[in-house]
Amino acid sequence: MSQAAAQDKGFCLWFTGLSGAGKTTITNLLVKELLKRGSKLEVLDGDVVRENLSKGLGFSKEDRDTNIRRIAFVANLLSRNGVPVITAAISPYRDIRDEARQMMDGRFIEVYVKASVEECERRDVKGLYKKARAGEIKEFTGISDPYEEPLNPEITVETEKQTPEESAQQILKYLEDHGWIAKN
Amino acid sequence: MSQAAAQDKGFCLWFTGLSGAGKTTITNLLVKELLKRGSKLEVLDGDVVRENLSKGLGFSKEDRDTNIRRIAFVANLLSRNGVPVITAAISPYRDIRDEARQMMDGRFIEVYVKASVEECERRDVKGLYKKARAGEIKEFTGISDPYEEPLNPEITVETEKQTPEESAQQILKYLEDHGWIAKN
Repeated sequence: MSQAAAQDKGFCLWFTGLSGAGKTTITNLLVKELLKRGSKLEVLDGDVVRENLSKGLGFSKEDRDTNIRRIAFVANLLSRNGVPVITAAISPYRDIRDEARQMMDGRFIEVYVKASVEECERRDVKGLYKKARAGEIKEFTGISDPYEEPLNPEITVETEKQTPEESAQQILKYLEDHGWIAKN
Repeated sequence: MSQAAAQDKGFCLWFTGLSGAGKTTITNLLVKELLKRGSKLEVLDGDVVRENLSKGLGFSKEDRDTNIRRIAFVANLLSRNGVPVITAAISPYRDIRDEARQMMDGRFIEVYVKASVEECERRDVKGLYKKARAGEIKEFTGISDPYEEPLNPEITVETEKQTPEESAQQILKYLEDHGWIAKN
């Protein structure tokens, strides 16, 4: 398959997982590799979206749902026009992820970035778990707010057993095997 | 220029004008014609965006600005990936339109859909002017809220002097003449 053909295929890699599970790290590796291969690509990172589309929203179930619906709305606009998208928000609720899946029927690839709360808390890259334990952050996913694991994700990357590079390779292989991107 | 080449050019037709000036009518005509020519296209209509990206926002200057910034954010994501976009919100404030212009540097085409308040009120397609005069709608652009005309729009369509078809043709001709779409 030529690069041109690959460029025309829109899909949505929908990452879901706890804070600190590795969503951003793996995303950054994927971005590098996909751009190198000449693919179009947009990343809808949780923080970017909260800044540009959802300022003022909090972290109640309702506000989280609204935020995720907005990400899905934009991811759908892009992917249905042939632009691959990676979304990298925690997206803790199964029902809203399933809504996004239905909206992007056939283009939605759920990637469960899996790591235990214990491991994410041990890493605590941004120091958020510490704040959550101290009660400084309310409604923190995994500590004081629920995280609902995907039941049938297209891809699960086990970041306690794999390096970020291995997880990124696993995802690239999935995209190649399913014809979303050209084989390298 | 081939259709394929035309399809790869992302631009943003940024409509601005009073309620009832003809933004939606002209947009619908353009959509029909551009899709017929094989172009990709997305429309970010004021109502659609308020439903999907800006629910809960009101019509204060601050909330209007936030709404328009979100439209610009999404229009930018699409147009920079080669997807033509039409935005059809009133977008009454010059400073925020200019922000959108800067964001989409070189891809931003401001279309002033021009009709006087008197004419729009006479048409009153949605019955909104009547409600605004009765005080049932506060902060109604042109009646109780400002509308700032564009100073240097790329295109001005005078909908009191033209039919919607003529306005749509004028815009298509601009897109052709400036190489955004293939000549028919």
